[in-house]
Amino acid sequence: MGGRSLQTFMVLFLFMICLSNIQISEARIRHYRWEVKYEYKSPDCYKKLVITINGRSPGPTIIAQEGDTIIVDLENSLLTENVAIHWHGIRQIGTPWFDGTEGVTQCPILPGDTFRYEFVVDRPGTYLYHAHYGMQRESGLYGSIQVSPRDGVAEPFDYDYERSIILNDWYHKSPSEQATGLSSTDFKWIGEPQSLLIQGKGRFNCSKLTTPSLDPDACNQTKPECAPYVLTVIPGKTYRLRIGSLTSLSALTFQIEGHNMTVVEADGHYVEPFVIKNLFIYSGETYSVLVKADQDPSRNYWATTSVVSRNRTTPSGLATFNYYPNHPRRSPPTVPPPGPVWNDVESRLAQSLAIKSHQNYIHKPPQTTDRLIVFLNTQNQVDGRVRWSVNNVSFNLPHTPYLIALKENLTDAFDQTPPPTGYDFVNYDIFKRTNKTNATSSDGIYKLQFNTTVDIVLQNANDMNINNSETHPWHLHGHDFWVLGYGKGKFDIFNDPRNYNLENPIMKNTVAVHPFGWTALRFRADNPGVWAFHCHIEAHFYMGMGVVFAEGIDMLKNLPSSIMGCGHTKGFHRP
Amino acid sequence: MGGRSLQTFMVLFLFMICLSNIQISEARIRHYRWEVKYEYKSPDCYKKLVITINGRSPGPTIIAQEGDTIIVDLENSLLTENVAIHWHGIRQIGTPWFDGTEGVTQCPILPGDTFRYEFVVDRPGTYLYHAHYGMQRESGLYGSIQVSPRDGVAEPFDYDYERSIILNDWYHKSPSEQATGLSSTDFKWIGEPQSLLIQGKGRFNCSKLTTPSLDPDACNQTKPECAPYVLTVIPGKTYRLRIGSLTSLSALTFQIEGHNMTVVEADGHYVEPFVIKNLFIYSGETYSVLVKADQDPSRNYWATTSVVSRNRTTPSGLATFNYYPNHPRRSPPTVPPPGPVWNDVESRLAQSLAIKSHQNYIHKPPQTTDRLIVFLNTQNQVDGRVRWSVNNVSFNLPHTPYLIALKENLTDAFDQTPPPTGYDFVNYDIFKRTNKTNATSSDGIYKLQFNTTVDIVLQNANDMNINNSETHPWHLHGHDFWVLGYGKGKFDIFNDPRNYNLENPIMKNTVAVHPFGWTALRFRADNPGVWAFHCHIEAHFYMGMGVVFAEGIDMLKNLPSSIMGCGHTKGFHRP
Repeated sequence: MGGRSLQTFMVLFLFMICLSNIQISEARIRHYRWEVKYEYKSPDCYKKLVITINGRSPGPTIIAQEGDTIIVDLENSLLTENVAIHWHGIRQIGTPWFDGTEGVTQCPILPGDTFRYEFVVDRPGTYLYHAHYGMQRESGLYGSIQVSPRDGVAEPFDYDYERSIILNDWYHKSPSEQATGLSSTDFKWIGEPQSLLIQGKGRFNCSKLTTPSLDPDACNQTKPECAPYVLTVIPGKTYRLRIGSLTSLSALTFQIEGHNMTVVEADGHYVEPFVIKNLFIYSGETYSVLVKADQDPSRNYWATTSVVSRNRTTPSGLATFNYYPNHPRRSPPTVPPPGPVWNDVESRLAQSLAIKSHQNYIHKPPQTTDRLIVFLNTQNQVDGRVRWSVNNVSFNLPHTPYLIALKENLTDAFDQTPPPTGYDFVNYDIFKRTNKTNATSSDGIYKLQFNTTVDIVLQNANDMNINNSETHPWHLHGHDFWVLGYGKGKFDIFNDPRNYNLENPIMKNTVAVHPFGWTALRFRADNPGVWAFHCHIEAHFYMGMGVVFAEGIDMLKNLPSSIMGCGHTKGFHRP
Repeated sequence: MGGRSLQTFMVLFLFMICLSNIQISEARIRHYRWEVKYEYKSPDCYKKLVITINGRSPGPTIIAQEGDTIIVDLENSLLTENVAIHWHGIRQIGTPWFDGTEGVTQCPILPGDTFRYEFVVDRPGTYLYHAHYGMQRESGLYGSIQVSPRDGVAEPFDYDYERSIILNDWYHKSPSEQATGLSSTDFKWIGEPQSLLIQGKGRFNCSKLTTPSLDPDACNQTKPECAPYVLTVIPGKTYRLRIGSLTSLSALTFQIEGHNMTVVEADGHYVEPFVIKNLFIYSGETYSVLVKADQDPSRNYWATTSVVSRNRTTPSGLATFNYYPNHPRRSPPTVPPPGPVWNDVESRLAQSLAIKSHQNYIHKPPQTTDRLIVFLNTQNQVDGRVRWSVNNVSFNLPHTPYLIALKENLTDAFDQTPPPTGYDFVNYDIFKRTNKTNATSSDGIYKLQFNTTVDIVLQNANDMNINNSETHPWHLHGHDFWVLGYGKGKFDIFNDPRNYNLENPIMKNTVAVHPFGWTALRFRADNPGVWAFHCHIEAHFYMGMGVVFAEGIDMLKNLPSSIMGCGHTKGFHRP
């Protein structure tokens, strides 16, 4: 090879490397076309209407890589119902209008319309998507988002294979039936869920039907559709299970009989690994756990999920942890493990406290805050209806999305008075049943100074029942927050902050407030947009347990007209 | 009294008369505020979700006088569902945009929105209103419109009192459940209705539940809500019963035990009176009958309604015809009369033929027509789904309302090819099962030359079952038509028109096509707008049994922006 040709070769070689590097580093566009419609499905053997995406519930898993752009063209093929989908855990930096929260960031999508969601998944991790309109999430409109790191970027743990699993609780009644009962003056609560689903598969005992049917297809336990979910593993291999919960109501525990799990990721952030027998998981949370198939390979094992934090009447959800080459339908020879007792608050608090940022991935929080807001969570009556409240204000969604109202200065679209930033810390007894008549309702919001640090303390309290306080998983849109601390009883504004973890707190988008306790979190108001922050229990948010933050609205460029067309924004959308 | 004061008195007196005359002749505005929402109701003792208006189903009766303007401010308080209401029988002259037909004359009304309907009731008579979106009518969103003549204008019959009664059939499943079954490739038909309602009250035998419930409130025959409707009469008095049918499926017969009825009005037109024992009534029709309380006053009587034209499995609906002062809950001492047998087509055809215009109120039809359109009604398969078709084209509603698309010249909003105006008259055998695969679907429409006379022949045929042809009640929006004739078998285009009744045909807005028969009607295309013409059986229209006429669009002034905001008209609505 002469000097000239060597030179040419080198140039070409470098060019090739360059090209391949571009291919490696260049983010891709992942384009999905989804048709949303009603279908009859039997996820737990009981046949009912389910909202499917392309015929499936859970919908297709979005598998992407850090930096990719996701485009979802969502066609609403429901007959008379609108729809909206939230991309849970995706911060929507630069695209706050595609957060998918009806009434906050967009108008609902009408039947017959196709709406384009377009956003970047800017961080590896495990995320979710689900309906965010009325109580539609309960209809089965949900799925997983799985984001891997950029090529060549290692994660702080090793595994051979991975699986996404969504845990859910399942009702046989429709969201309309539930919502009508919740919002009537003779309040009717639908009760505990009929079953628990593991990746869309549950098992309702048809003989337990309070309404037995003569239709053999109405509840049929022989349907393959409701055969237990099978997690097949190869002996000796290590599996990353990406586990998310989208329960309507239930806090859950998840365990795999005879196997330890190592928690390595929470809500898209690496966790300093710790080993558990069972994982407590609250609605809106995601975890990655590593499981090694290191037990006797001659049999299968149970994977189970059960209700905690409420006296369970819902049977455990069962899946099969199947050692290859055993038959996937071969039942384990054992009784499914019962898991921890439902009212063991200490163990759940202990897991919450155990979750710290991985030592090599610490995002140190700002050491001081610019603003402290305390949110007292209570159950109240407003206008003769049972409601949930924050600082005695029960939240109503407006019909004009805040994002548009704020950007277009439609001051009559919602209450311009901000709700209170605290409660009567001195006199309020969090261990006493709530006063039934002392709450109001509002669609007012909290405006946050852009680029400031905000502390939120979520204060739990006794609800309307004697000696009862529920677990509330709060989810923040558009941000991750640092979890600074948990405590029991009433938050002490002077002393408790001294014990905050400011060294290695985990960042999350969803966090539990334990019964009669408090949870403190901190975030930077650095994402221009309007963001819901609410209890992820579907009925609680519907009944007013939420707030909305707005920040940096003046920094937003023009909003896409596709999000407009309802309330005061009729006529704002011109295609 | 001196001359001067007498003069003053006379002037004042004349002024007063003048004032009172103005009050008499001046049309009034009747303003209603309606909130539409879901509530649990037990119209037939079985509790289910019902869409109510101001807490009621049937909704409030609109009682007005000829020439009045009706304003209804309709607030949609459903959670995720849109809505639209059609004013059935009101021609909407000058206000075609308020016909309330989603996809034809307006976009649906979003949750949280208040939509104003404003129209004139320009003719005395008995009319209806009901949801016209998806299959929402079946949820109980319907009511009566009762228009009296102008003061001083007599009607051609006398009565002492009047009552409005709507007959309906009732399903325990939701419209979403029905629609999902009908539109899936493994077609599931919901079957016959569970009960028949008389003015919103029916009686389901809870022990016959195929799905008995442990909830004592789920089906409770002791509820006052589902006690039979009571029609209290004073002995010797004559009652005008304004009877409408809004069944989803069923053709009905209505009778009052031991009493004759005199038919005096049909769809807002005076009928040459005739006496019947039982009234056949099809979905979308209204009749006024006179009943004299001339029987033994010491007891009560049954008023009953039963299914005809389909082999009935639905029990008869029962009301009490209560002679005052007997107790309204005192059961008649007799067995309810069974009514005519379901498959007695001849009697039904005879009633159809008996209905002629009252001799003093004849609107003579044009003696010739400008255009003849024949509509063959068949059941077919399109893309693997069971559908109903007209001339082998199954109708789909577009998502951009025709009225706006035509006025704004949005030619890509729907198929610009008009559907066929006839079928293969020579070769098509109407007595043979339909070919399952020979239909297509379209949202194309028929454009009618303004101010022309149009003849429509509705031709019935065998459906997908052997030796079966159903009764289809066709309803025309925006017009009344003359009913020129009925016949058996295949319409003979050369000979049958010779037997048309061109002397005293009744005008109607809804007419039945009897099994294996045809019905001929004529109307003037003199109402600028876009008008649906369809089978009033909710499932048949949903499955494609309808057409749309457009006429005089260029004569319309600006459309109200309130009807816009969906499909291609997003952004057209600016409040």
